[in-house]
Amino acid sequence: KMLGKVLCTVLFVGAFPSPAEASQGHISVVLLGATGDLAKKYLWQGLFQLYMDQVSSGHSFTFHGAALAALEPGQRLMFDVLKKLSCPPDEAPDRCAVLKDQFLKLSQYHQLKTAENYAALSREIETLLRQEGLKEAGRIFYFSVPPFAYTEIARHINGSCRPPGGAWLRVVLEKPFGHDLRSAQQLAAELAGFFREEEMYRVDHYLGKQAVAHILPFRDQNRQFLDPIWNQHHVERVEVVLKETVDAKGRTSFYEQYGVIRDVLQNHLTEALMFLVMELPANVSSAQEVVQHKLQAFQSLWGLERSSAVLGQYQAYDSQVQEELQEARGYVSTTPTFAGVLIHSDSLRWEGVPFLLTSGKALDERVGYARVLFKNRAYCTQSGALRDAGHSQCKPKQIIFHFGHGALNTPAVLVSRNLFRPVMPKDSWKEGEARPDLHVFGQPLSDFYVYSPVKERDAYSVLISHIYHGRKDFFITTESLLASWAFWTPLLDSTSRQPPRLYPGGVENQHLLDFEMVGGGVAFTLAEPAQLLNPSGQTPSDFRAIQSKFRQSPLVSAWAEDLISQLASDMEEAAVRSVARSGQFHLALSGGSSPVVLFQRLARHHCGFPWKHTHVWLVDERCVPLTDGESNFQGLHRHLLQRVRVPYFNIHPMPVHLNRRLCVEEDGGAELYAKDIVALVANASFDLVLLGVGTDGHTASLFPRSENGLEGAPTVVLTESPVKPHQRMSLSLPLINRARQVFVLVLGKGKHDITTLLSRVGHEPRKWPISGVSPSSGQLVWYVDYEALLG
Amino acid sequence: KMLGKVLCTVLFVGAFPSPAEASQGHISVVLLGATGDLAKKYLWQGLFQLYMDQVSSGHSFTFHGAALAALEPGQRLMFDVLKKLSCPPDEAPDRCAVLKDQFLKLSQYHQLKTAENYAALSREIETLLRQEGLKEAGRIFYFSVPPFAYTEIARHINGSCRPPGGAWLRVVLEKPFGHDLRSAQQLAAELAGFFREEEMYRVDHYLGKQAVAHILPFRDQNRQFLDPIWNQHHVERVEVVLKETVDAKGRTSFYEQYGVIRDVLQNHLTEALMFLVMELPANVSSAQEVVQHKLQAFQSLWGLERSSAVLGQYQAYDSQVQEELQEARGYVSTTPTFAGVLIHSDSLRWEGVPFLLTSGKALDERVGYARVLFKNRAYCTQSGALRDAGHSQCKPKQIIFHFGHGALNTPAVLVSRNLFRPVMPKDSWKEGEARPDLHVFGQPLSDFYVYSPVKERDAYSVLISHIYHGRKDFFITTESLLASWAFWTPLLDSTSRQPPRLYPGGVENQHLLDFEMVGGGVAFTLAEPAQLLNPSGQTPSDFRAIQSKFRQSPLVSAWAEDLISQLASDMEEAAVRSVARSGQFHLALSGGSSPVVLFQRLARHHCGFPWKHTHVWLVDERCVPLTDGESNFQGLHRHLLQRVRVPYFNIHPMPVHLNRRLCVEEDGGAELYAKDIVALVANASFDLVLLGVGTDGHTASLFPRSENGLEGAPTVVLTESPVKPHQRMSLSLPLINRARQVFVLVLGKGKHDITTLLSRVGHEPRKWPISGVSPSSGQLVWYVDYEALLG
Repeated sequence: KMLGKVLCTVLFVGAFPSPAEASQGHISVVLLGATGDLAKKYLWQGLFQLYMDQVSSGHSFTFHGAALAALEPGQRLMFDVLKKLSCPPDEAPDRCAVLKDQFLKLSQYHQLKTAENYAALSREIETLLRQEGLKEAGRIFYFSVPPFAYTEIARHINGSCRPPGGAWLRVVLEKPFGHDLRSAQQLAAELAGFFREEEMYRVDHYLGKQAVAHILPFRDQNRQFLDPIWNQHHVERVEVVLKETVDAKGRTSFYEQYGVIRDVLQNHLTEALMFLVMELPANVSSAQEVVQHKLQAFQSLWGLERSSAVLGQYQAYDSQVQEELQEARGYVSTTPTFAGVLIHSDSLRWEGVPFLLTSGKALDERVGYARVLFKNRAYCTQSGALRDAGHSQCKPKQIIFHFGHGALNTPAVLVSRNLFRPVMPKDSWKEGEARPDLHVFGQPLSDFYVYSPVKERDAYSVLISHIYHGRKDFFITTESLLASWAFWTPLLDSTSRQPPRLYPGGVENQHLLDFEMVGGGVAFTLAEPAQLLNPSGQTPSDFRAIQSKFRQSPLVSAWAEDLISQLASDMEEAAVRSVARSGQFHLALSGGSSPVVLFQRLARHHCGFPWKHTHVWLVDERCVPLTDGESNFQGLHRHLLQRVRVPYFNIHPMPVHLNRRLCVEEDGGAELYAKDIVALVANASFDLVLLGVGTDGHTASLFPRSENGLEGAPTVVLTESPVKPHQRMSLSLPLINRARQVFVLVLGKGKHDITTLLSRVGHEPRKWPISGVSPSSGQLVWYVDYEALLG
Repeated sequence: KMLGKVLCTVLFVGAFPSPAEASQGHISVVLLGATGDLAKKYLWQGLFQLYMDQVSSGHSFTFHGAALAALEPGQRLMFDVLKKLSCPPDEAPDRCAVLKDQFLKLSQYHQLKTAENYAALSREIETLLRQEGLKEAGRIFYFSVPPFAYTEIARHINGSCRPPGGAWLRVVLEKPFGHDLRSAQQLAAELAGFFREEEMYRVDHYLGKQAVAHILPFRDQNRQFLDPIWNQHHVERVEVVLKETVDAKGRTSFYEQYGVIRDVLQNHLTEALMFLVMELPANVSSAQEVVQHKLQAFQSLWGLERSSAVLGQYQAYDSQVQEELQEARGYVSTTPTFAGVLIHSDSLRWEGVPFLLTSGKALDERVGYARVLFKNRAYCTQSGALRDAGHSQCKPKQIIFHFGHGALNTPAVLVSRNLFRPVMPKDSWKEGEARPDLHVFGQPLSDFYVYSPVKERDAYSVLISHIYHGRKDFFITTESLLASWAFWTPLLDSTSRQPPRLYPGGVENQHLLDFEMVGGGVAFTLAEPAQLLNPSGQTPSDFRAIQSKFRQSPLVSAWAEDLISQLASDMEEAAVRSVARSGQFHLALSGGSSPVVLFQRLARHHCGFPWKHTHVWLVDERCVPLTDGESNFQGLHRHLLQRVRVPYFNIHPMPVHLNRRLCVEEDGGAELYAKDIVALVANASFDLVLLGVGTDGHTASLFPRSENGLEGAPTVVLTESPVKPHQRMSLSLPLINRARQVFVLVLGKGKHDITTLLSRVGHEPRKWPISGVSPSSGQLVWYVDYEALLG
């Protein structure tokens, strides 16, 4: 309080502009966690930079450092930091010295612990402004605190520190923003109770890095060159990379909970990726357009699977964790410190182009970049030696957004000279000087047009300036944060039990972390080296599909992902065999959610599937239009048919929609389908029927005690479902039982009870229709995952 | 005659084996054109090699050189050649000298000019065999003569020289086998009048080159490694290349008629290509299986268009032609001496993989190879310098069949060490020695496993041995010859008027002949340099689509290929505009043959077409099942729909086939289609209707004097066609006239009369239904090619 008064007096005397000058009003910046690492390293310097830049803007400022520490020690700690603030090289030393002096006078420390502390801070600000006759423009609260403290602080700010009248509130949040989708949703919901969306500025400091921030402007300013080539036909691959030489030592208490995917990929690399992937907004500086396009880009990404990533952990990590977290000697961490992830988009633009995201600690070099490598579309008639002279079209073509470090050691934008000379804003980017001996990305630097910032700026300074200017496009909205977590969480879940490959660190890693794209996923190129193996030898992912019997028929069981992969392979084998035998493969598929993953796997991983000779039939259908979201066919189309090449004539949706009405008996849809089957499928015997099981024991759309389809003729029937939509069309049990092969897929804990029941009961189709599946001369195989089988 | 007697005496004494030894019988080899270039350079040496190899086989031999020259000078010329025959390095000099002596004694010259000459030759052979008590095994007639002489010689051989009894006849034919498809068919038909297919051995000496001949065995012996990677997912591109340093000087009388495509690409490079493209036969040494697979491979290739090739001509060529062919100073040849051609296969295996065939004279080096370049599927985490150590997966991966010359200067098979160590037959291929300083295909030789033949053999020696062994799989069958001409002729036709790019020759060509793949075709990378331009400036391909009026509506006219390309672009533009406006594009398409090229162009060149938002409707349909070859929809499906991604729901075939019967009034198919249109197309106004015109003035399936569809309601009607299949379904004129845009495509000389007529008549839809097309508020554009417009 004493100091407060003193400061106020000081401020009064020298540092404030007169009310007339400060016509834009006063801004109070409150830095929570003012004595923490981030504040020490970047934030105070960023605030000082803001002050230097905006001192003549017409705004007046005060800076309020806050922490849990009591006034005196906190004050001392904070001013130790402030005294060390440096003057940027492009600032006149005299001016800077004066401004630093003013900045210190405008800064004060507050202990913020209790509700009363927050209320007092707010009162102080108001008193000061009243005394000075200043209008309030707004308040910035910068959260540089651990996430567990967020809710409490947010409540206090919302409760006591909102500025009165028309002044704005901006709260700045630092990651982590949750640990997975659920926790991020929870945190977002809590924050939404205190702040409006437009008040929240979630920082990803990569958006303040000059090379990252310039991706969209670059795409915009170079539309004429990029429009024809920024697509699957010209781009071979995209790499987004952050390699670090440091390890996690000293930070394992944080790192052990997060790992490299949460620490770097989910946020930093994803943001850079999105700038490359998204359709270019008409106005790239409209925050709203950018976020809309970003969300659409997220929608276009293929879901990640376990095989989408390779994970590593540097060898010393375990002992560092044991030491820092006081874990037992035998403690084995599966937290990855290295990850390589393959991402695909199924947009028209990017279909088939691999996006590789890579990051790791304890690697051979420190460097970050996003690199777009173009296909070589040229044939150079002249032989090799001559070919390399000049800017041959046969040399690699790439565009690199170089975030920093590496051989270049500066943010930069590089464009191969055989591509085009880019348009760059002259006031902020300048052409680099020749560095004859420097090679980057496999080529001499002279092969590129190289641009670097006229003025290199720290990411936090940039972002603090954007907060000041209210440029929300440089921050993460709740929607896009959740979209990112929705994208990454399945990978985090499916790899959580997976032991990462151990690597020695630094240059000794050699080729140990090289990986390659194999069948839709990635895998390390080198086989697991024996000496680095997890000493137990047994790895949690070592589950193999086990085979035994279920209801007297073969049973294949495994964790869901392995089971699906086995089922897909078995289906391809059945298809290839059938086409070899008869030239055709008649496949009847069920709807519902279980087969979705299967369909995706077939579309992505089974390029050898003889789709051209496959006829696709429906096992059952809901009586809704084919284009309805509830239609089984619609799901089949979205997840499978639109991605593979089944001839139009070979696709047989059920005719539930005839004469513009649904499943009306007189329209004879069921009879029509039965006739089609008889006409096309030899002996009305499908080569393969894929079924599921409901918790009530139904299969296809044959429900317990159904009047139709459980016995009688091998035909197609209209049935009634106990759940909406009630009307259904379905193959009858006798028709199903004519098939050469029937595969039944059962997934998930929710199916454990019915699975257990089915293992005990006999042939009672009226009670449990699935129990009536028993191909008269064909084969029945059960695919049941561990969760369904074992609970 | 004298010498004949003398020779016979000599033979009698020393050179013949006794009848007992010659138990396999006697073979007479007749070399027609015995004193020509090819005979001098390769064929006599090949025959001598055959003799050395087979002297102890149990066969006895005589060699009959023949030409038009009289006995004495011909004899002298021939024996000058024979005396210079060389002994191969792996043959003991003593033995070789003895054998050469015998070979000379077994050889004689014949003047073969008249029918009597041929009869006399045959009598001589028979007499000799009778005298020696030898059984006749067979006769080989090797045609090393110009193609115009083929028919005459063939007639004489067939008439007078067939061996009696069970002995075989083998006639060996040298290219050219025609000049285009028609002439090749004609020649084949003529030859078929004289010889059975199994008697004809058409030589492509590339099939005798060791590295070419080993392609299929290599694929067979390395199935385990190649099976997973020999496909579109792993292969980036395939290059088949023959570069020569020599030019055509001294051969222009031949070359001016043929050019590089007929001289090298249609035959040599195509053969190598087919070995790479074809599905691997179960038995790669079965001539029948190989030819079947080769024919299938031809079927899978995309048709060539003008834009599939870049053509060049070395600068000195014109003056060489003027000098050698006594052409006038101003004579300008358009014969290409360089070609780069892009070939695509639409097989599942190769879809999207570019096959680049290149050959030229007066280039910077002499080399021939087929190169399969694999995609880089790896990400190498270690930085550049370290990455290159060892056999990193990030280094290029390739398999090269090196035909000869170049830096290696030997036939060879090269496989990148980061791919696999190939299985090679040890008796015929050996691992090459290290040549530390040698770089090939951009890599040090040490990056490859390198194999070269244990014994390097000239192609003609190899082929003569295959003729002797009756290995027809090393020769071109009539079927595959015609398949190759059928493939190449459209390109030859469409480029015949096109002036090639001039190039200086040798290393001075620099990047002038580099070319790249652009929008489905190829184009030179560098813009046409001014100083090399055809002095006239005007090129025959310089036709631009001209625009004017036809029947008061806009007219676009050009040569067919340019017209189609303009129409396709206009359609894409209309589609993009429509999707931007309404989110959808309703396109109604006509059947028939004219739109096929359009469909292909849309599928190949218009990757930006918004197919996902396009609804495809039929303008008219024949009353046949949809899968019938006559169905308009079938054609549309084959040429367009199966190659683009139109959602299933957006495809609207006409319901001509309901209740298992065709176009029955009571089934209400026409009404159904009309209802669908009203339900889905706003205001029943298609965004674009594409029409054609019949020679009788019909359009859609609206024929002159039709009772339905020419007036009245905007609906769908059943009509009668004067030609089979008579029954049709069609949009009515009033419905067509509701469209926003109608494009009418008219192609070919056959449409000239109706086009001329239409330019004069008014609105008389009952006489000429097309004259009733007149969108009430939409736009009509005519696309008429020069042939239809100008006749």
